Amino acid sequence: MTHKTLCFGELLLRLSAPHHLRLSQSPSLDVQFTGSEANVAVSLAKFGSHAGFITLVPDNDVGHMGLSTLKKLDVDTQLCMFSGERLGLFYFEMGIGHRASKVLYDRAHSSLATISHGQIDWHKAFEGITWFHWSGITPAISQAAADATLEALQVAKELNIAISCDFNYRSGLWKYGKQPSEIMPQLVQYCNLILGDGDTINTYFGIKENDYNQLALKTFEQFPALDYIALTARKAIHASHNTYKGFLHDKKTMHESKEYDIPDILDRLGTGDAFMAGLIHALQKREEDVQYAVDFAAASATLNHAIYGDFNLITEAEVIGVMQGNTGGNVSR
Amino acid sequence: MTHKTLCFGELLLRLSAPHHLRLSQSPSLDVQFTGSEANVAVSLAKFGSHAGFITLVPDNDVGHMGLSTLKKLDVDTQLCMFSGERLGLFYFEMGIGHRASKVLYDRAHSSLATISHGQIDWHKAFEGITWFHWSGITPAISQAAADATLEALQVAKELNIAISCDFNYRSGLWKYGKQPSEIMPQLVQYCNLILGDGDTINTYFGIKENDYNQLALKTFEQFPALDYIALTARKAIHASHNTYKGFLHDKKTMHESKEYDIPDILDRLGTGDAFMAGLIHALQKREEDVQYAVDFAAASATLNHAIYGDFNLITEAEVIGVMQGNTGGNVSR
Amino acid sequence: MTHKTLCFGELLLRLSAPHHLRLSQSPSLDVQFTGSEANVAVSLAKFGSHAGFITLVPDNDVGHMGLSTLKKLDVDTQLCMFSGERLGLFYFEMGIGHRASKVLYDRAHSSLATISHGQIDWHKAFEGITWFHWSGITPAISQAAADATLEALQVAKELNIAISCDFNYRSGLWKYGKQPSEIMPQLVQYCNLILGDGDTINTYFGIKENDYNQLALKTFEQFPALDYIALTARKAIHASHNTYKGFLHDKKTMHESKEYDIPDILDRLGTGDAFMAGLIHALQKREEDVQYAVDFAAASATLNHAIYGDFNLITEAEVIGVMQGNTGGNVSR
Amino acid sequence: MTHKTLCFGELLLRLSAPHHLRLSQSPSLDVQFTGSEANVAVSLAKFGSHAGFITLVPDNDVGHMGLSTLKKLDVDTQLCMFSGERLGLFYFEMGIGHRASKVLYDRAHSSLATISHGQIDWHKAFEGITWFHWSGITPAISQAAADATLEALQVAKELNIAISCDFNYRSGLWKYGKQPSEIMPQLVQYCNLILGDGDTINTYFGIKENDYNQLALKTFEQFPALDYIALTARKAIHASHNTYKGFLHDKKTMHESKEYDIPDILDRLGTGDAFMAGLIHALQKREEDVQYAVDFAAASATLNHAIYGDFNLITEAEVIGVMQGNTGGNVSR
Amino acid sequence: MTHKTLCFGELLLRLSAPHHLRLSQSPSLDVQFTGSEANVAVSLAKFGSHAGFITLVPDNDVGHMGLSTLKKLDVDTQLCMFSGERLGLFYFEMGIGHRASKVLYDRAHSSLATISHGQIDWHKAFEGITWFHWSGITPAISQAAADATLEALQVAKELNIAISCDFNYRSGLWKYGKQPSEIMPQLVQYCNLILGDGDTINTYFGIKENDYNQLALKTFEQFPALDYIALTARKAIHASHNTYKGFLHDKKTMHESKEYDIPDILDRLGTGDAFMAGLIHALQKREEDVQYAVDFAAASATLNHAIYGDFNLITEAEVIGVMQGNTGGNVSR
Amino acid sequence: MTHKTLCFGELLLRLSAPHHLRLSQSPSLDVQFTGSEANVAVSLAKFGSHAGFITLVPDNDVGHMGLSTLKKLDVDTQLCMFSGERLGLFYFEMGIGHRASKVLYDRAHSSLATISHGQIDWHKAFEGITWFHWSGITPAISQAAADATLEALQVAKELNIAISCDFNYRSGLWKYGKQPSEIMPQLVQYCNLILGDGDTINTYFGIKENDYNQLALKTFEQFPALDYIALTARKAIHASHNTYKGFLHDKKTMHESKEYDIPDILDRLGTGDAFMAGLIHALQKREEDVQYAVDFAAASATLNHAIYGDFNLITEAEVIGVMQGNTGGNVSR
Repeated sequence: MTHKTLCFGELLLRLSAPHHLRLSQSPSLDVQFTGSEANVAVSLAKFGSHAGFITLVPDNDVGHMGLSTLKKLDVDTQLCMFSGERLGLFYFEMGIGHRASKVLYDRAHSSLATISHGQIDWHKAFEGITWFHWSGITPAISQAAADATLEALQVAKELNIAISCDFNYRSGLWKYGKQPSEIMPQLVQYCNLILGDGDTINTYFGIKENDYNQLALKTFEQFPALDYIALTARKAIHASHNTYKGFLHDKKTMHESKEYDIPDILDRLGTGDAFMAGLIHALQKREEDVQYAVDFAAASATLNHAIYGDFNLITEAEVIGVMQGNTGGNVSR
Repeated sequence: MTHKTLCFGELLLRLSAPHHLRLSQSPSLDVQFTGSEANVAVSLAKFGSHAGFITLVPDNDVGHMGLSTLKKLDVDTQLCMFSGERLGLFYFEMGIGHRASKVLYDRAHSSLATISHGQIDWHKAFEGITWFHWSGITPAISQAAADATLEALQVAKELNIAISCDFNYRSGLWKYGKQPSEIMPQLVQYCNLILGDGDTINTYFGIKENDYNQLALKTFEQFPALDYIALTARKAIHASHNTYKGFLHDKKTMHESKEYDIPDILDRLGTGDAFMAGLIHALQKREEDVQYAVDFAAASATLNHAIYGDFNLITEAEVIGVMQGNTGGNVSR
Repeated sequence: MTHKTLCFGELLLRLSAPHHLRLSQSPSLDVQFTGSEANVAVSLAKFGSHAGFITLVPDNDVGHMGLSTLKKLDVDTQLCMFSGERLGLFYFEMGIGHRASKVLYDRAHSSLATISHGQIDWHKAFEGITWFHWSGITPAISQAAADATLEALQVAKELNIAISCDFNYRSGLWKYGKQPSEIMPQLVQYCNLILGDGDTINTYFGIKENDYNQLALKTFEQFPALDYIALTARKAIHASHNTYKGFLHDKKTMHESKEYDIPDILDRLGTGDAFMAGLIHALQKREEDVQYAVDFAAASATLNHAIYGDFNLITEAEVIGVMQGNTGGNVSR
Repeated sequence: MTHKTLCFGELLLRLSAPHHLRLSQSPSLDVQFTGSEANVAVSLAKFGSHAGFITLVPDNDVGHMGLSTLKKLDVDTQLCMFSGERLGLFYFEMGIGHRASKVLYDRAHSSLATISHGQIDWHKAFEGITWFHWSGITPAISQAAADATLEALQVAKELNIAISCDFNYRSGLWKYGKQPSEIMPQLVQYCNLILGDGDTINTYFGIKENDYNQLALKTFEQFPALDYIALTARKAIHASHNTYKGFLHDKKTMHESKEYDIPDILDRLGTGDAFMAGLIHALQKREEDVQYAVDFAAASATLNHAIYGDFNLITEAEVIGVMQGNTGGNVSR
Repeated sequence: MTHKTLCFGELLLRLSAPHHLRLSQSPSLDVQFTGSEANVAVSLAKFGSHAGFITLVPDNDVGHMGLSTLKKLDVDTQLCMFSGERLGLFYFEMGIGHRASKVLYDRAHSSLATISHGQIDWHKAFEGITWFHWSGITPAISQAAADATLEALQVAKELNIAISCDFNYRSGLWKYGKQPSEIMPQLVQYCNLILGDGDTINTYFGIKENDYNQLALKTFEQFPALDYIALTARKAIHASHNTYKGFLHDKKTMHESKEYDIPDILDRLGTGDAFMAGLIHALQKREEDVQYAVDFAAASATLNHAIYGDFNLITEAEVIGVMQGNTGGNVSR
Repeated sequence: MTHKTLCFGELLLRLSAPHHLRLSQSPSLDVQFTGSEANVAVSLAKFGSHAGFITLVPDNDVGHMGLSTLKKLDVDTQLCMFSGERLGLFYFEMGIGHRASKVLYDRAHSSLATISHGQIDWHKAFEGITWFHWSGITPAISQAAADATLEALQVAKELNIAISCDFNYRSGLWKYGKQPSEIMPQLVQYCNLILGDGDTINTYFGIKENDYNQLALKTFEQFPALDYIALTARKAIHASHNTYKGFLHDKKTMHESKEYDIPDILDRLGTGDAFMAGLIHALQKREEDVQYAVDFAAASATLNHAIYGDFNLITEAEVIGVMQGNTGGNVSR
């Protein structure tokens, strides 16, 4: 089956200080677009899958620029709507060595945060769609966005669409009066595939386990619709040197990727989304091969550390190259 | 008397597409700070006057960068407060030839817009201050900001401080439910010097006159505290070629500057503030010489067209040079 | 009727020395894409029309980048094919004042020049298309490209599609052994609308007339299918200061636009294509209004002088603004 | 006690080839200001201490730019004087891997080198000051600068001000006819805290010891006023990968920091000054905690390797984060 | 006869704030080399003449970069010597509109200023040379440089070499205790061709005449060796819009070029040198055609206004194009 | 004996995406020139040797820019000829971490590929030359270029000139119908020194040996004129972290350099040429010292990893510094 994936979430403007300058040193900021779910759509499109994105952006130059950037990268943006006052943004300072990277959000009052009830016709949006992807960021930005997510999930489930969710817990959001534990369980119950980590699973569902296998099993227990639970483990030696490893549990086995040593990190943002896109793409293409999926996802995320910006501008062939041990040392001519 | 001027208003981040690119073409945006009243403070400081600025900025990197930029330019920022969630910003696309410049505001919900009643202790703020400057932008951003302006004006008047106001009508603001005509008359009654144009005077006070002299006289009538009414006339031949002329009425005579031909405009934003700063500086130094004031102000505004960014990085000597007919043709060695 | 336009021609990489540097001074070159017919498609899409583009590009990063750039700008590239070895390119040095601009072509052996007979299935390509646009550049690059143009025109005529042609005579091309006078008459006979100038009409058809009206009438005589003949007149005061005027003859009357004074030219390349796109768009929307068409086209071309790069990143509303006398002097907020 | 520190030394313009280009490759040079003692003042101000700087700069754009940069960073520059002909400068080429960094001085005949006797009124300069910092560079640039340093030290001692000195031996200076051994002992006798290394201590005082503890004890013996001797040890694996460790002897014990592994060095210049500022700041805040001081200083220096430019744009909280083991791996949101 | 020209003077580093930024705004400075006599050599080499340059530069990266730049442009630098401590430099702020350009010199103590007596073996230097060019800057920088100029002129005269001098009066130099009137007459007596203006001729020789013809005739009288006197007249409408005209008197007639209108000045520095190089080149090629010489020189200078940097990167064909009325309006393909 | 080396090969334009951007992300491309044999010439000239380069370039701006760049770096370009239509080029994407670098060639139909028989007069070209260097790239680009290489080698041998060849096998070339094994043996028979690797030796000559010593001995057997066989071994840990080691066999012994660990690779291209230039330079200066030659060459190649661009902008002293263990950790002041 050829999958068509629809991703739903907020598009953001990322304003980055270049060349490891601090924000206070930088005479100009690089303009890039991002958003966890948009990143997944871009990565899928680069892998050659059909990927659509649905969101609300303001009907001004910044909103249009965001959509154009997605179109350029072959993401289908026909479902995107113009609505609201502003595109959320963040300022980004890239760390290096012992100095950490810094994200300074200015995303309140965004178009998506002010979505109104029923503004998106989800039955229409899901025409032809076989996979729906969302993340824990959307229900965190406003009650309206949480409600829209719930609407989407109910229709998707009704239409038998596969559903994936990246937990993406951002403690700095969730400012509208609800705790994640009041919102997320209801939403996650519709999902087939989730990506999280132990702390987030604890925050969202109160499940606490140090052992990844136990953690997954308990989570499967609580969410019977779940087919897969994915986790990632990152060790930070320095801001520009990490290790990275992926896990994927299919209710029977915890499959593990190799652990990648990632020195000379060019840009760490978006690597979780590259992992998620890798999972979705691999599971769509080789449904039964769970080990392949986690290996593909980990290699995808590893390569994303070598791309400036959040978008995972990496082809399927390049991911497979890394899976096969091509560590980037040869010049391709 | 040595004057100390305090300017009150909103500090803004300006994100400019460089080199006449459209926003949609620009891979990076130049980082600059501005704000009508801050611009006046910077220009006064460059002229060698004592200038302070009071505002609210968020306690984050962007807020701190804004204040640092002012400190670098010798503006006293000791009264500035950290408060609120965000620094307002706008995206700027610089026109050229037949293509107009474009300002795209994203300034709602700013720190200053969410000022609370009594947050600024105006009696303390005005210690040692002899001149207070504000503009029509502040009461346009929120009821709270309009209220704070009124508080300031009442205390300033009580302390016998000279008061100037640049009308700066922005039709895109005034979204909180009040019309300018409901707010501005009450505030302008405290002023000694105003800078406006015919359309704004009509919008604010319902006074309509094509003849500048009549317009000024009617306005003086309505606002007995006023000593001076300033106006500017710009003719736009193209986006990068304008003419500019200033007027200053002292209740008796309408004094006019020469009309400057300004080709090769580098950056038009902030020129009204450069005019205002020129007026304030000249009137503070040579109180009786109204003709000098309008001439100094017009030359200051003219030179500001040749500076990238809104700040008027021009010395008093350079303004005087232009007043004396130095049209920029010689290389200063 | 809602028109769908298909443009056929070569996509080129433009490598420009920035900031008026000579090529020999420039440490880096700006990357832009262009091509007379692609420029027309982009301009139509920016005006809100449906515009497609068909060409051959190499299946490498440069070919893909070219298509992505068009997708970003809403041009339909689904018909583009990957074929051949290289994307043609040119180096561009932007003149200023008394120094002329310079285009240094390196476009031989391009993908489109090596098109093979029947490679494009024109019947399929023209599905749903109502207007076909080509230019005199394509038949100039190789016999194969001239043949493909002829194939296209024959099918388009058969399908009753409107046909426009920009003459775009480039004396530096036409190196494959044929003279333009051997090729162009056969191709032009299918056209409804042509854009040329006196010298080119003489070169292509041997028609020589100083009077524009006579020139048009003689050309109409030779090509009975023609409905409209357009001409443009440019006076070059300096490299960065021109005047520009358009003409459009509808077999009855020569309609003239106003003459625009264009100082501070940011980038002159592509202005003819902006004129052509203006004609096509206006004639598609207001078929009977020939005067509107030439006015719209001239304003479109005028604005294109204020855009860096060849693409006419100008909306219909902005063109209409200039037609209505908005000369760019106001800051749009 | 709240300390007020005054730093005395030369301000320099640093012209850096960006992006690891060699000087001969670089079409432009980044403009930065530096100077060992100014760097200490900046770092102290970033830590939240009161820091002033006193120097002589020429009364031209370059001199003013230097002072503005310090003001922006909250250094008190009120004592700085305009005098002399030029600001010293150096060209900087940043090494990487096996290629070393290169500093090319052009600092002779600077404003500070041509200071005249008594030009600074040290009694006035020291009003309210509790800590005075100088370095071995100033007495190396001219006899006049050495004399001024001695004047300063004598007054500081008389006023019971704490005195610190970074030895900063530059063999390329000391060209005015005196050897460091003829000048430095007399100046160092006034100091409470010195920062040096074994070679410099040998050059300045003829004390030679391989063992750091013995070296410190012998130096304490020779300079009875000394309370603390600090040393640093750097191992250079490559130009962009060093290790760094600090030592601080309080006459009783040699306290050692952990050894930091510092890969991905962004800019090594100024790290000794970041160490010195760390020492001063920590000793001013927690006078008795010598271990804390050396730990704080070493973490401060380590972080400075991750900042472009010499200024240590690092907050006290960031230093403490590294002291607590935060190695920069997390993105701060 | 094929001429070989040797130019003697100081090479300077020019550090320019780009894009019309003020020095205080510019995060980086463009690196360029210049020097009146080096500029003449470069322009001659671009015209296809043999041009050599002789100077002293320091044996460091900056000195080597300067010479490399000349080699790249086909100037023969074999006679250049490594000597002294520093390459003089200046900071350059480019004016626009009503804001004047600004040159901030930091050239004292340069290699050439510290030339020693007899350091250049002029007999050897002049081997094969037929034309010697110097300017009034060299005798202005130090007594030693003035002495070296005199040595050169005496040997050149002895060898019957043609001698040209650009007066280039810089009031900011001449700091070593001599007035230009004490030095220049002795040096100018050897010259065949001089380029000056009325004020400089008055300063150097005390000759004062408003009428250009009279001025020339009186100067010819005082300097019998002179064959040609050249003058230029610039009118500055704005910093970026001048007019320019050249004059050349051959003892019989004052020949005048047309007056060029030069809007959109990209960079004014070096235009006098472009004029001088034009004169030398034209007189070398068409000795008898004085009118051609002044026309060629004026067109050369006019085009130099359209080149960033001081070097006149313009070919002989381009100059002739402008002489023939090509005002830069056509795109050369 | 003072050697004069002549290098023969193709000059290429390298268009690099800066800062590790992918080509598709980069708004501009850095302009650099390269070519294996030109790189050798540049490196020799930087070491202080006399190095000439002979090639064909088009008589346009790009061809002239290429030669100017070589002149700037002291390469003698007097033998270069203007001929043909285009300079070959490649687009370059710099890898990092796990992402490989990418070279996208667009070099077909270049000036050198279209050289005609006898176009270079090799007897004249070799006047005064003692060493001739070529590489396996030239015979790979066209039959004409292979023929010209053979002509050159025959004349060089006749004149008793030492001959070196870098094998430089590029599988993407060799498109004109010949296999390397049909061409290379005939050319290599004239050589004294070759640089290759096992795979290439197998491809060119069918010699297959895993042991480097055996491989060398068999190759010596097949090519009796050979004096030296050089090999290099690179291990790629990541795109930006390699190890590098050189070997040089003199028919008796295989001499090995130390193995360098090279993290933080700035630019890997051209390192083989830096090795080759190191060999040539060392063998020219210290003919008998084979160990010195391989050590010098390996250090030269190691340093080249720290230079942006292909040219080895490294002095002999810097190479010797690395040979002596200076690993780049000290700042040279």
